[in-house]
Amino acid sequence: MSGEFSFALLATDGAARRGEIATPRGKIRTPAFMPVGTAATVKAMFLDSVRASGADIVLANTYHLMLRPGAERIAALGGLHKFMGWPHPILTDSGGYQVMSLAALRKVGEEGVTFRSHLDGEMFALSPERAIEIQNLLGADISMQLDECLKLPAPETEVERAMRLSLRWAERSKRAFEGAPAGRALFGIVQGGVTPRLRAESARALAAIGFHGYAIGGLAVGEPQDAMLSTVEETVLELPAAAPRYLMGVGEPDDILAAAARGVDMFDCVLPTRAGRHALAYTRNGKINLRNARHAEDPRPLDETSACPAARDHSRAYLHHLVKANEMLGAMLLTWANVAYYQELMHGIREAIVARRLADFAAETRANWTKEPR
Amino acid sequence: MSGEFSFALLATDGAARRGEIATPRGKIRTPAFMPVGTAATVKAMFLDSVRASGADIVLANTYHLMLRPGAERIAALGGLHKFMGWPHPILTDSGGYQVMSLAALRKVGEEGVTFRSHLDGEMFALSPERAIEIQNLLGADISMQLDECLKLPAPETEVERAMRLSLRWAERSKRAFEGAPAGRALFGIVQGGVTPRLRAESARALAAIGFHGYAIGGLAVGEPQDAMLSTVEETVLELPAAAPRYLMGVGEPDDILAAAARGVDMFDCVLPTRAGRHALAYTRNGKINLRNARHAEDPRPLDETSACPAARDHSRAYLHHLVKANEMLGAMLLTWANVAYYQELMHGIREAIVARRLADFAAETRANWTKEPR
Repeated sequence: MSGEFSFALLATDGAARRGEIATPRGKIRTPAFMPVGTAATVKAMFLDSVRASGADIVLANTYHLMLRPGAERIAALGGLHKFMGWPHPILTDSGGYQVMSLAALRKVGEEGVTFRSHLDGEMFALSPERAIEIQNLLGADISMQLDECLKLPAPETEVERAMRLSLRWAERSKRAFEGAPAGRALFGIVQGGVTPRLRAESARALAAIGFHGYAIGGLAVGEPQDAMLSTVEETVLELPAAAPRYLMGVGEPDDILAAAARGVDMFDCVLPTRAGRHALAYTRNGKINLRNARHAEDPRPLDETSACPAARDHSRAYLHHLVKANEMLGAMLLTWANVAYYQELMHGIREAIVARRLADFAAETRANWTKEPR
Repeated sequence: MSGEFSFALLATDGAARRGEIATPRGKIRTPAFMPVGTAATVKAMFLDSVRASGADIVLANTYHLMLRPGAERIAALGGLHKFMGWPHPILTDSGGYQVMSLAALRKVGEEGVTFRSHLDGEMFALSPERAIEIQNLLGADISMQLDECLKLPAPETEVERAMRLSLRWAERSKRAFEGAPAGRALFGIVQGGVTPRLRAESARALAAIGFHGYAIGGLAVGEPQDAMLSTVEETVLELPAAAPRYLMGVGEPDDILAAAARGVDMFDCVLPTRAGRHALAYTRNGKINLRNARHAEDPRPLDETSACPAARDHSRAYLHHLVKANEMLGAMLLTWANVAYYQELMHGIREAIVARRLADFAAETRANWTKEPR
C-alpha cells in the first residue's frame, strides 16, 4: 500500500462523469455504489461475494463500530480492513447521522455531540476531532467530517444553524485530519436542507477549506425526489469539478440513475441489503416481492441473464419457500442478488457515460423496470 | 443418473467399517456424516460450501417439506434435488420423529398417525404408504420407513408396542416402495428403546423383511451415552453385514467416534448447524463458545490448520463481535466451520479405519479436544 489519494475524470456525458479514484488500497470506478457494511459486515453476505459482484469499496459506520467492538479494539487487532477481511477501500461515515437517528438523549453543542448508546445506555461524546481519531483508528481510506444531520422538514433558521455548525466542524475536522497517514482522504459534507441559498453557501465554504472530496448530506430523509434532485443539481454547480462528489444514503436505483446524470460520483444505501432481508429483490426487470404467493410454483430464476448465482441459479419458488420458512438462506441469496444488481446498474451507468448515451441507457433501464408485475 | 444402489465394504478395523455406497446420484464414502437440510436448506449455508466441506449426502425432513412447500409442489418443480440445488444424494427421513416432537394433537393408530401442523394448525395424516409416496415425490435417494418414535424413558410394554407397530409399518413401507424408480433405496428402522431383547427382535425382523440399509432409531433422545453405545453394539450384531447401518440423530463428535468404532456407517445430527447459530464452534482442539468475552481481543482463527475459510481466515475477535452484534454472518461462518469440522472428523475416521488404527485416532482426537479451555 503506497500512493496518494487522487481522482481522475475519464469521460463525461452532460453533467455525468465517469471517473476513477485511486487509493493505496485500490481503485474505485465511479460512479460507484458502496454496499453498506454497518458493523464490519455487509449483512448476510460473504465479502468475497460482495467483491465478486463488482464492488470496489464498502462503507462502514463509525457510530456502530465505536460502540461495539470499539475503535481502539479494532485498531489493536490491525484495523478494520483486517478485522472484517476486506483488503480493498473502505469509507467510514462520521457517526453524525446515526447519532441523530439511533442514539437517545443526544445533546448537540458547539464542541460536538453527547449521546447515550442505543445498545447499553452508556454515555459517549463525539466531537469533530474524536470522529477523525476514530476513523483513523479504523484505518478508513475515506473519512467523513462530523456534521449535524437534521430531520426534514425543519425550520429554515434551524437548517441554517446546523449548516453553519457543520461548517465550523468541517474546519476542525480538516485540522484534526492533518496527521493522518498518506493516501487517506477526508470528505467535507454539504448541508443546508433543500434551500438553494444555504446549500450554495455550504458548498462554497467547504471548497474554500479544501477537501479530497465532497459529500451531499442531509438528503434522502423523506423529501420528494424532485426536491432532492434539484438540490443535488444546484449543489454540484458549486463543487470543484476535480474532486469526487458523494450523495450520502441514496438510494433507489431510479435515484441513482438521476443523480449520476447530475454529476454525482458515489452512492451508498442500505436498500439492497435491507430489502434482501425483507424478501424484496431488485432486478433488471423491476422489483420482485418474494413473499407474494404468486411465486410459489414459479420455476424461473430472478433473472436468467444475471452473472450472480443467487439471481440466476435458484427458482422463485425456492426463494419464496425460503422466505416463507424464514430461512437465513433466503436473506443470504436475496441480499447477494440485490448487491449484484446494484453493481450491474453502476457498471451500465459507467459504460453509458463513456459511450455518451446515459440518457438512452436510463430510459431503457427504466423501461425494463416495468416488466415485472407489481 | 443410472445404476443401482449398492454398498461395498472396503476395509474394516475391528467392528468399524470403511465403505462406499453407490447411488445413481453419486457415491457416499462411509462412515459418513449427513448435514441436516431440514426445510430444503442446510441452515445458514450455501450448498456449494456444504459440498466443498466434503459432504457426499445431505438429509432433508419429510415432515417439514410435506407441510411447506408440500411434496406435490416440489415434485412439480422437478424434485428436491433441483428445488434446493443439490444434485448429489439426499436421504429423507419419514417424518415420524418430527411428528412426535413438533406436531400437536398427534394420534397414532394402526393405520398411521394424524397430527396438526405446528405451522398453521392444519390436520395431516401420515401412513407408511403416504410417507413413501412423499419421499418418492421428493425424489430421495434413500427413503426411510415410517416408525413410531417414543420419548425415553418409557415403560417397556410401551416400547415393545411401538417397536411391533413400527415392524408392521416396515412391511407396509417395503410393499409401498416396490414401484419406486430404480437405484433408490429404502431403509428399515430398528426400534426397541434400550432393551436388548426388543432391539434384537426388531433388527432380526427387519433383516427378514429385507432393506437396502438399516437405521437404528429412537436413540440420542436423552439416554446416557453408555446406554446408547451398548444398544448400538448389540443391535449391530443382529444386522446384515452387507448393508449400511445408520444411527439416526447422532451426534456429538465423541458419539460418532464411538459409534463408528462399533460398526455404524452413517450419521446425521443438527448439532453442527444448530451450534453454529448459537455461537458454538466445533474444532479439532475442542468446542469454543464465541459468546465468551475472552475472545474479544483474540486475533487467532478458530483453527489455523483448517481447510475451511470460515475456521481459518477470521479472528475469534471478529467472530465474537459478529455473535455479540447478532449479525447473520456470525451464524454463516460458524455453521460453515462446524460442518467442515464434522467432515474433517469423518475423513479422519475413514482414513484411520483403512490404516487399522481407529483406536489410536480416536484417542488422539479426544486428547486434542481438551486443548481449548472450557
